[in-house]
Amino acid sequence: MLLNNKISLSFFIKNILRQALLIFLFANLIVLLKLYSPLVLVIPITIAVILGTCIALLLAFRTNQAYDRWWEARTAWGAIVNDSRSLIRQLQMFLTEEPDNESLLHSFVERQCAWCFVLGDTLRGQDITDRLHKFLPLSDQQRVNRSTNKPNAILLDHGLAIRRLYQNQQLTDFQMVQLSTTLNNLTDSMGRCERIKSTVFPRTYTFNMQVFIYLFATILPFCFDSIHYLLDVPLVTLLSSAFILIEKSAIQLQDPFENQPTDTPMTTIAQKIEADLKSMTAYPTSPAKQITQTYYSL
Amino acid sequence: MLLNNKISLSFFIKNILRQALLIFLFANLIVLLKLYSPLVLVIPITIAVILGTCIALLLAFRTNQAYDRWWEARTAWGAIVNDSRSLIRQLQMFLTEEPDNESLLHSFVERQCAWCFVLGDTLRGQDITDRLHKFLPLSDQQRVNRSTNKPNAILLDHGLAIRRLYQNQQLTDFQMVQLSTTLNNLTDSMGRCERIKSTVFPRTYTFNMQVFIYLFATILPFCFDSIHYLLDVPLVTLLSSAFILIEKSAIQLQDPFENQPTDTPMTTIAQKIEADLKSMTAYPTSPAKQITQTYYSL
Amino acid sequence: MLLNNKISLSFFIKNILRQALLIFLFANLIVLLKLYSPLVLVIPITIAVILGTCIALLLAFRTNQAYDRWWEARTAWGAIVNDSRSLIRQLQMFLTEEPDNESLLHSFVERQCAWCFVLGDTLRGQDITDRLHKFLPLSDQQRVNRSTNKPNAILLDHGLAIRRLYQNQQLTDFQMVQLSTTLNNLTDSMGRCERIKSTVFPRTYTFNMQVFIYLFATILPFCFDSIHYLLDVPLVTLLSSAFILIEKSAIQLQDPFENQPTDTPMTTIAQKIEADLKSMTAYPTSPAKQITQTYYSL
Amino acid sequence: MLLNNKISLSFFIKNILRQALLIFLFANLIVLLKLYSPLVLVIPITIAVILGTCIALLLAFRTNQAYDRWWEARTAWGAIVNDSRSLIRQLQMFLTEEPDNESLLHSFVERQCAWCFVLGDTLRGQDITDRLHKFLPLSDQQRVNRSTNKPNAILLDHGLAIRRLYQNQQLTDFQMVQLSTTLNNLTDSMGRCERIKSTVFPRTYTFNMQVFIYLFATILPFCFDSIHYLLDVPLVTLLSSAFILIEKSAIQLQDPFENQPTDTPMTTIAQKIEADLKSMTAYPTSPAKQITQTYYSL
Amino acid sequence: MLLNNKISLSFFIKNILRQALLIFLFANLIVLLKLYSPLVLVIPITIAVILGTCIALLLAFRTNQAYDRWWEARTAWGAIVNDSRSLIRQLQMFLTEEPDNESLLHSFVERQCAWCFVLGDTLRGQDITDRLHKFLPLSDQQRVNRSTNKPNAILLDHGLAIRRLYQNQQLTDFQMVQLSTTLNNLTDSMGRCERIKSTVFPRTYTFNMQVFIYLFATILPFCFDSIHYLLDVPLVTLLSSAFILIEKSAIQLQDPFENQPTDTPMTTIAQKIEADLKSMTAYPTSPAKQITQTYYSL
Repeated sequence: MLLNNKISLSFFIKNILRQALLIFLFANLIVLLKLYSPLVLVIPITIAVILGTCIALLLAFRTNQAYDRWWEARTAWGAIVNDSRSLIRQLQMFLTEEPDNESLLHSFVERQCAWCFVLGDTLRGQDITDRLHKFLPLSDQQRVNRSTNKPNAILLDHGLAIRRLYQNQQLTDFQMVQLSTTLNNLTDSMGRCERIKSTVFPRTYTFNMQVFIYLFATILPFCFDSIHYLLDVPLVTLLSSAFILIEKSAIQLQDPFENQPTDTPMTTIAQKIEADLKSMTAYPTSPAKQITQTYYSL
Repeated sequence: MLLNNKISLSFFIKNILRQALLIFLFANLIVLLKLYSPLVLVIPITIAVILGTCIALLLAFRTNQAYDRWWEARTAWGAIVNDSRSLIRQLQMFLTEEPDNESLLHSFVERQCAWCFVLGDTLRGQDITDRLHKFLPLSDQQRVNRSTNKPNAILLDHGLAIRRLYQNQQLTDFQMVQLSTTLNNLTDSMGRCERIKSTVFPRTYTFNMQVFIYLFATILPFCFDSIHYLLDVPLVTLLSSAFILIEKSAIQLQDPFENQPTDTPMTTIAQKIEADLKSMTAYPTSPAKQITQTYYSL
Repeated sequence: MLLNNKISLSFFIKNILRQALLIFLFANLIVLLKLYSPLVLVIPITIAVILGTCIALLLAFRTNQAYDRWWEARTAWGAIVNDSRSLIRQLQMFLTEEPDNESLLHSFVERQCAWCFVLGDTLRGQDITDRLHKFLPLSDQQRVNRSTNKPNAILLDHGLAIRRLYQNQQLTDFQMVQLSTTLNNLTDSMGRCERIKSTVFPRTYTFNMQVFIYLFATILPFCFDSIHYLLDVPLVTLLSSAFILIEKSAIQLQDPFENQPTDTPMTTIAQKIEADLKSMTAYPTSPAKQITQTYYSL
Repeated sequence: MLLNNKISLSFFIKNILRQALLIFLFANLIVLLKLYSPLVLVIPITIAVILGTCIALLLAFRTNQAYDRWWEARTAWGAIVNDSRSLIRQLQMFLTEEPDNESLLHSFVERQCAWCFVLGDTLRGQDITDRLHKFLPLSDQQRVNRSTNKPNAILLDHGLAIRRLYQNQQLTDFQMVQLSTTLNNLTDSMGRCERIKSTVFPRTYTFNMQVFIYLFATILPFCFDSIHYLLDVPLVTLLSSAFILIEKSAIQLQDPFENQPTDTPMTTIAQKIEADLKSMTAYPTSPAKQITQTYYSL
Repeated sequence: MLLNNKISLSFFIKNILRQALLIFLFANLIVLLKLYSPLVLVIPITIAVILGTCIALLLAFRTNQAYDRWWEARTAWGAIVNDSRSLIRQLQMFLTEEPDNESLLHSFVERQCAWCFVLGDTLRGQDITDRLHKFLPLSDQQRVNRSTNKPNAILLDHGLAIRRLYQNQQLTDFQMVQLSTTLNNLTDSMGRCERIKSTVFPRTYTFNMQVFIYLFATILPFCFDSIHYLLDVPLVTLLSSAFILIEKSAIQLQDPFENQPTDTPMTTIAQKIEADLKSMTAYPTSPAKQITQTYYSL
């Protein structure tokens, strides 16, 4: 997630540089073609207005849909925060105050932290060995590693641990089913993230967008009555680049799990969950929050 | 679902070819009519702007609604992924660790996989015999085949199997009802897909759209002061085709179960569910994921 | 619901004929007034653009809201399909396999079908005597007929039948309450339909729309520099009629229970529910689906 | 709620009269200023187009948000209808058929009706003494009157009555909790209405809107090349008034509990609930529905 | 929250003063540059229309998204009102009428009030010592103060108090789990507020907006045929400032927990919750509501 205070301008420019250059060369080509072409055509500039309005509208809706994906991803992680806290509070409410139960509770806290970090790293396609090593006992690490879907395997471990509590009669029938509902909620949040990650935003959108922007860049130079090289090329480049800038911003928002500065800050959220859960269950030491030095947090 | 990396341009062109040709011929007709008509009318070009703005707005909203249908279809299948995992995890939590229960669990996994594949194929209007043959015992295949709604019949089998467990006292009252709630969720997702499949997008929309686009194509040639055959025909064709391109893209999105490249990738999702469920229940061999060679996945 | 394959053009034209004629006469009036008025005013055509943009925007949003109502009505009926199936499956899961229970189950199926058909016909303001006669025993028919809200009375009968099962100890406490939750869902869907039916779409919208369209039709003729009777009247009529066409389409969508071709196909859905429920409970004969000959289904 | 059939035109005009007059005077002022000012400035009319587009867009979104508030208010009252019916049906399902229970059920019906009417009147800031007197016994009336939140106090009475049933063992543990869930739903609907009532629509919106409309009215007269008093003043007045008409319509929709013709028809809905609940519980006489003579219902 | 009756104009002006001045200086710079530059370029004014339309659209969508954040924050606090009432009513329904239970109930009321005030103050980054001191016993104050997340610690105390009731057999299994569900709802509302607070609105939006507005301010002076210093500078300043005014209004709405006049009125809502809960549980004295003297409430 891009933070509010400090942000590098280069981040924005780097994003559209390649496309802006392309548009610049393209604009030169069209203007030169117009200068040296035998028959001079003048297209009414209102045609450019129609195209411009159309591009603006499509861009606005596209930005809106990209924003919705981004916000849904953030909401899914917000739900993970809520359900993590609820899960641990429910366990504290349902289990009796025996000394054994404290270490039991800690094992749930650690497994939950593991799940949060592993889910984030899996979505980003990163290695999870360190995360597993930090939070889980060795046998669990191996079982999780063998699974085709690591976060799901950890949730299953949660479920089996709850089953053991139920079979030892530490949980009533109803309490166990209630905890299973909380696990279902976590499954749903995980599934939402996976859905956003695995669903490519309709390709046709991007294609249509490009068709319109290049059509606009082609027609615009023909709309000026007189020909000013110094006016036509910068104007076409600036306007088209401005459209591409918005399109690029939308593309960044629409894929929030790609290990980029514009990502949903999953690692930061997972650290917050870890601090909260450990604070709830009276852990001896709580991890110091690292201060981010960059203009974004992950 | 169209994939991100490789996409054939011909796919896009093929889609609007017929309509673009129609518009091209129509534009020729109008321009010729204008050239040889006795009285020459000049329509102010701002009329074309009003029409263009109107078309752009209607297209933007239409695309939005088509996108919402597409996204709802994808969300319904995301919910199917979640509830499939939850169903199997709940069964693992509720059943005791007896050797019999493992094969019992496997029968649930297979029935769930059957349901996913059969739902996908039924929505696409494809033959399901092979799917049933792969996952279900013979007697179940026959019962499902006799039903008017195949996926619903499989869900009913889930329900009856849960009832047998309850009557054998392998499930408590509350656990059984909780599993029934998970089945209700699957019923809801199935119903959402059927609703999207069976609800024709309002015909009046498409009709109004065409009225506006052809009105635009008719008026535009009359808006140019002078007559350039080489300018008028391409411009009218390009602009109108661009509008039709967006309209066609919306039509593809709005019907996501038609066995087309732009479909919701139901088969891929069902394969993922199969892999996950088998991984959860320690199946001996897990199916190798096939690599798709095309620019889309189904 | 308008179907996809065959649609009569006359349906569309019939809809706007009266208004289009009005606009046509109105345009004639204004153009004649302009021809014979002593002082000739020329309004800049950009004023018409501002009005046109405003109309286009308001129409787009209005269409959107009408679509949302239409889609909510369809979604409510989708939920009725889901909950009907879930209700019967739950009863099959909860009741034991005694011979008596089969006829009991059939009575629930019939009452549920009665509810679906009666709800649809009540929303359309049609007679329900035949529906009741087909599905319900005589005493129930009379009780339902006496009620101020027929579908609600049938749901209440469902509830009382479930209470009898509970008092005969054929259902546990928890199962009974779970079935009551499913009845609540059906109550909610019924309430959503009633809400859409009884809530008039804000009258002010239609009024504002008409103010703008007639303002547009009044101003447009004054925007042309020269006066061409053959140009002004058709243009004003066509553009204004196109706006009215969209407005009319929205009005059709916004009221989906008015016994019109654009209705939510409640009868078709109820027939599908009947077929599904009878297939689930092994009815001897299932009704042959009637083939619709028209361009719409109800 | 404005009804469909008969509507007084004066209702619309009365609404914008004061503002339209203001705009009319303002337009006169600007045009006179322009006539007698020493230096004549001509502003390109496209500036007015930019402003007009901006106003149209802001108005469209504002109308949309006002509509959403209005629709949410209506939906909350739709939920109240559903939950009222569900509450009474659940009580009928859970209580045994003893003679005492009928009068008990009637007391719940009356308290529920009281709650609906009192909630509506409280939201409108009206006196509720008559409502309480009609439905509640004297002791309850006093307790409710002492409370800071009258509808909430009635819901609490529901809760305490259910507790008495539970303590007399007329309800099981689970049934009691289920009824408590239905009370929570009613609490939620009440809270939604209170939220809409107490949340002032962002003041900045109205302010920005006015800034733009007056800027538009100021600039527009300077955009005409020649000066026609008879053209400029009416055009500026009409266009600006049309914008204000839409803004006013939005303002009416956004506050649906202000005892105005455009209100959510809470009294009508409460009467319908009363009729339905009494029909469900076999009341001796049911109240005759009053016929509304006006163009709206409350 | 800004209130309806009295509002200071200075509030609006103060907000955009710095940016408006910047635009004013910038406009002077561009116009002077244009006056004394060797080559005079005239840009077609339709380019400004395209840019203006684009800015208007982006602003409209941005305002919409900011409004959605603001409304979601208000909705979360509405849910807190509902769940606070439901929590206390449920406790009153579940606990028996013993003298001890009254003081017990009061302790829950006070802890719930503490939670509401502490949540509001924590979101605004304010000191909470006084709030804790007013509502909680000393030992609880210390425990809450040690926690990394204060409101979450108070919810945990709720949970542990409910566990004590359960272990003393004052609550059944099912009642306890039901109360735990209400706590989960409160956790969810808290999490929604935290999510809105901690999620920076996409920076790229603000950046793109500024790019477009400054591009517009740069191009606009070149669009006037003749050069009027007194016309160009005010027009450019006014139009650009109007755009910035809307952008600023959106920014205020999008961050509703920043201790500003446009905040969600969390303190006012918490006071209302306190009054309602104390009225429900027959507190001896209820706090007099303070009258706000300003044009907003917090």
